[in-house]
Amino acid sequence: MVKKYSFGNPIETDAVVKDIAETEWKDGIFRKEGNSFHYTLRPDEIIYGLGENVRGMNKRGWRYVSECADNPNHCEHTNSLYGAHNFIMAGDGVQKTCGLFVDTPGRVTFDAGYTDIDELCITMEDGDYKLYLIEGASYPDVVKEFRELIGRSYIAPRWAFGYGQSRWSYNTADEVREVAAEYKKRNIPIDSIYLDIDYMERYKDFTINRDTFADFEDLVKEMKEQKIHLVPIIDGGVKKEDGYDVYEEGKEKGYFCKDEDGEDFVIGVWPGKCCFPDMLNDEAREWFGDKYRILIDKGIDGFWNDMNEPAIFYSEKRLKKVFDKMEEYKTANLDVNTFFEMTDLIGTISNNPEDYASFYHNYKGKRYRHDKVHNLFGYYMTRSAAEAFERYVPEKRILLFSRASYIGMHRSGGIWQGDNMAWWSHLKMNVKMMPSLNMCGFLYTGADVGGFGADTTEDLVLRWLEFAVFTPLLRNHSARGTRRQEVYRFSHVQDFADVIGVRYQILPYIYSEYMKAALRNTMMFSPLSFIYGEDALAGQVEDQLLIGENIMIAPVCEQNASGRVVYFPERMKQLIFRKGTVAEGIVYEKGFAYVDMPMGSVNIFLREGYLFPAAKGGKCVEDVDFEDLTLYSFGEEIKPYEYYLDDGETKDFNIGSHVRMLSC
Amino acid sequence: MVKKYSFGNPIETDAVVKDIAETEWKDGIFRKEGNSFHYTLRPDEIIYGLGENVRGMNKRGWRYVSECADNPNHCEHTNSLYGAHNFIMAGDGVQKTCGLFVDTPGRVTFDAGYTDIDELCITMEDGDYKLYLIEGASYPDVVKEFRELIGRSYIAPRWAFGYGQSRWSYNTADEVREVAAEYKKRNIPIDSIYLDIDYMERYKDFTINRDTFADFEDLVKEMKEQKIHLVPIIDGGVKKEDGYDVYEEGKEKGYFCKDEDGEDFVIGVWPGKCCFPDMLNDEAREWFGDKYRILIDKGIDGFWNDMNEPAIFYSEKRLKKVFDKMEEYKTANLDVNTFFEMTDLIGTISNNPEDYASFYHNYKGKRYRHDKVHNLFGYYMTRSAAEAFERYVPEKRILLFSRASYIGMHRSGGIWQGDNMAWWSHLKMNVKMMPSLNMCGFLYTGADVGGFGADTTEDLVLRWLEFAVFTPLLRNHSARGTRRQEVYRFSHVQDFADVIGVRYQILPYIYSEYMKAALRNTMMFSPLSFIYGEDALAGQVEDQLLIGENIMIAPVCEQNASGRVVYFPERMKQLIFRKGTVAEGIVYEKGFAYVDMPMGSVNIFLREGYLFPAAKGGKCVEDVDFEDLTLYSFGEEIKPYEYYLDDGETKDFNIGSHVRMLSC
Repeated sequence: MVKKYSFGNPIETDAVVKDIAETEWKDGIFRKEGNSFHYTLRPDEIIYGLGENVRGMNKRGWRYVSECADNPNHCEHTNSLYGAHNFIMAGDGVQKTCGLFVDTPGRVTFDAGYTDIDELCITMEDGDYKLYLIEGASYPDVVKEFRELIGRSYIAPRWAFGYGQSRWSYNTADEVREVAAEYKKRNIPIDSIYLDIDYMERYKDFTINRDTFADFEDLVKEMKEQKIHLVPIIDGGVKKEDGYDVYEEGKEKGYFCKDEDGEDFVIGVWPGKCCFPDMLNDEAREWFGDKYRILIDKGIDGFWNDMNEPAIFYSEKRLKKVFDKMEEYKTANLDVNTFFEMTDLIGTISNNPEDYASFYHNYKGKRYRHDKVHNLFGYYMTRSAAEAFERYVPEKRILLFSRASYIGMHRSGGIWQGDNMAWWSHLKMNVKMMPSLNMCGFLYTGADVGGFGADTTEDLVLRWLEFAVFTPLLRNHSARGTRRQEVYRFSHVQDFADVIGVRYQILPYIYSEYMKAALRNTMMFSPLSFIYGEDALAGQVEDQLLIGENIMIAPVCEQNASGRVVYFPERMKQLIFRKGTVAEGIVYEKGFAYVDMPMGSVNIFLREGYLFPAAKGGKCVEDVDFEDLTLYSFGEEIKPYEYYLDDGETKDFNIGSHVRMLSC
Repeated sequence: MVKKYSFGNPIETDAVVKDIAETEWKDGIFRKEGNSFHYTLRPDEIIYGLGENVRGMNKRGWRYVSECADNPNHCEHTNSLYGAHNFIMAGDGVQKTCGLFVDTPGRVTFDAGYTDIDELCITMEDGDYKLYLIEGASYPDVVKEFRELIGRSYIAPRWAFGYGQSRWSYNTADEVREVAAEYKKRNIPIDSIYLDIDYMERYKDFTINRDTFADFEDLVKEMKEQKIHLVPIIDGGVKKEDGYDVYEEGKEKGYFCKDEDGEDFVIGVWPGKCCFPDMLNDEAREWFGDKYRILIDKGIDGFWNDMNEPAIFYSEKRLKKVFDKMEEYKTANLDVNTFFEMTDLIGTISNNPEDYASFYHNYKGKRYRHDKVHNLFGYYMTRSAAEAFERYVPEKRILLFSRASYIGMHRSGGIWQGDNMAWWSHLKMNVKMMPSLNMCGFLYTGADVGGFGADTTEDLVLRWLEFAVFTPLLRNHSARGTRRQEVYRFSHVQDFADVIGVRYQILPYIYSEYMKAALRNTMMFSPLSFIYGEDALAGQVEDQLLIGENIMIAPVCEQNASGRVVYFPERMKQLIFRKGTVAEGIVYEKGFAYVDMPMGSVNIFLREGYLFPAAKGGKCVEDVDFEDLTLYSFGEEIKPYEYYLDDGETKDFNIGSHVRMLSC
């Protein structure tokens, strides 16, 4: 049951798609004090939700802040990541569970047993917000109700479930060709190559650098012939440059965010001085979305939207302040406090709260200071593209995912889990974030495999792939200046080819589960407690996941480990994908067991009474025969599997014949 | 067997205490190419050593650089921490194991399967170094031989095994009194309170801030009456201030490090402009060491040496460069590359390699540029104090530990594991670092419990304590500006009192094992593989330790876990320390098992055939009755325990009666 409450004058976010009558607030399990809501936690009570954020699936024990933030170097003490996902759950997960969605584009703090280890406290910075309280029996029940409230998740084209190679920066068309050739030469499957900002002319959105990508259109065609999709990036800021049509149009039409004096607000990002299109303004959004056509017309069918928290390297005003202050410091006899004041001044130039509070949007006919609607920017940028695709290519699925997001955006596109680091702990975070994001409606998601920042290692990339072959978005991406991590650059290339190959063997199941989760508002990746709610040990497992209801995975996330301890909440049978073959492993009884998982293998644990369909594989998604399946099963009586299959391209998702029962 | 090799003109470091004849190099399992030594790794071969550095006990899979560095925010991709410990081991750990010690104060890179996953490659920046190659059967054999080579580890006074409370900053004497009173009021055991830089007059070494610590001498006395030792910090830099006697003397006598022109080299650290005493110069070292007497005469009997990598916030030269450059930037039309050049310029002011290459030491009669002998500074600063203590109070043990270190310093003092963060991953790193440090001779060591930087949580401090009650240095320390973490500030104070209380129950064993490890050059904390070398699974366990040969521990290092899976390499019996009592838990068979370990309990796993002596506890070390022991044992035939006990204060360590056999 969903109850809706409204406080002050909430800003409409379009997060919710259902019309629900408002109820007057009365303290119950949540006690309201000012703009805070308090909830007393039982010992061992689990808190789920919050989508994209740091730490565990169980969010207990930290303070999280919903405030879209560009922070690649995120650590345990980080409070905010790229998305702002205000949905949280507590309860016993079985008989009495409750979810709370705070619908406000402003700052919200979730103090989940941080200040007081026995209390959850949710605090809104402003007094204007809507609350949705969802009460249900179990976690999956509450999730389902919440997901119905916020509407159907974005559905990606099926080719976007193939393996993708990315790097900031592939500087020339020939570099892109080389990457494709290296994959093809070694028979490593691949479906896409991503273009970071380098393909653009001086980082200007919707332009092509004709010095380095002279024959861009030919490149797109050539790649398409090799069944490789090129996926270009689009950034949140538009370069302020006389004669650049996108800038000139935006300026003329008044589509950019304004400063206090009504002038176009100028900030520095990749292209240098930029203006932000007012993505929240209906007309500006339509105008910006129309620009994607420039690339669609060149044969592009996928995009990633970046820097849309929005990230600000500097504002003109702030730089002036900094330079003035530096002059003061120069003449002063610098003591150590002043020295730290100085380094702090420089260290806080980027993404400065003062800058976020000094420009304005024209949203639904009203003027809003940016910081009050901050969490909507990436959402509305992505919506801008999604709405444009609906206008131009209404029949066709276009790949679209974003860095920043807010609940509601899950209907327009997916997200990647932002710029991360080549850390084993970020692989583990990738695992933990999958169900949290599913709870909030984000299904098409994955992290930068191998890590974006910092130098990676061969084993980290391989182990990460062993997990990521299960995630809808499967992309190897890294930053300029870090160690190259295209898989063919390592010593044991065949291991990589084998592991990536597994993706194409398990794709029928992955795609089917993804589609069902989207169409039925269910979880694709679940914490163990979602199915084994009565089992307290299952609730403590943070590094294993259920995918759909048939299988469990337990990725190896520790360096130098050749296996790991797995918790089996019931009897399961191991399926080992290795060197192109599938072997049926032993049966594990309920309890803990050490499972040998040497590098280069992918392991699936099949629940008793369930089956798992596997294809023969392929060199790209198009190659995979989704009808030629081997059914692996375990147990005496096998539950038929509801197999979803469509053409993967068009949008008639709900045709009955797309679902059929597979039985052994 | 130890072989010594010499290349170029090595700089003497005094790391080694044994005189060994040199051998001519011939390629064997290590192949020399230029200044690199290559070693081919078997799959699953473990690499141990490197003392204080990031990642696992098994160092395989990363590139480590020996270069003492001040980096509190250290993450997986960090290459250097505060110490430079050039000892590394590989082999099978059972029949054929080899250790390599590179004796050079310059930069050394250990590429342990990073560039090539199947190779260990050690590279010296300069051509002048000594190599010691130690071949033995097992890891413990090689460690023992290495430790004999480098001499007996520092032995701390027994009171320094008590619990200590620290924080940057206790700003006044009354704040210190308050901390003591809060502990005493709640009956929480405590033996020491640490004074960070705040006790000094404007951060000047060997001074007292008489505004805030007017009655410092009384405070020391009062605390002593409460059986609390005050442990002040000493920093590596001396404030450049006319009239400050330490500065004036150092300047007059020419004891400071010089710049290229022979002028005193000036850098900024906590006090503002400072000079570095030339710790490498015998006379200067004696002079600096003598200064500790100022505090010893006030009743102080323990010190920690900080900022001695040495840390440099800025040099005068660099600041000038920065300001000049900022002027250029101001007038330029800043593009994004220039912007990042600017932030990078500011971001690299501190600890800049150019600065380390622009001052000089007078070492053993020769002039050395600092970067060539960088890794000796903290070592020689600590030696300076240790040598002074030998002169003044030769009979008495003084507590002394340092942030920076090099092998050789282990004879003069302990180390704390540097500024860390309030991260669960840093608790785990603390666990993993204990044996690595023991291999390199550092026995008196521990990490900042609860984490130094970033806001901690109640459960992290408690879980960390549950582990740290086993580490010789047991200190709760945190940084200014972070959440307060004195244990009485949390909700469940009794849990903290109970856990800290366990330290005083297990102290007879901890102290005895520490003393034996120091006197016999053995390991106090061992990886499981050191005892169970034939067991491949034991070799993979990274978060359990053996302490001595009698017990194993398996700390809980995950948030929200109420227990964990433990690997039992043989039958063991659980001893549960909880709420002041000791309960004998169940017997675990060889293999993996989940063990319930609720917060507030300390768990010990006793090996079959061994015993564990426990005392009744106490409110401080002096309180503990080391003779009134309860012997817990497991099995039929119990090996008598060699119990080491002395007065804990004086230095006649090797008297025969200090060791006796305890039997059930």
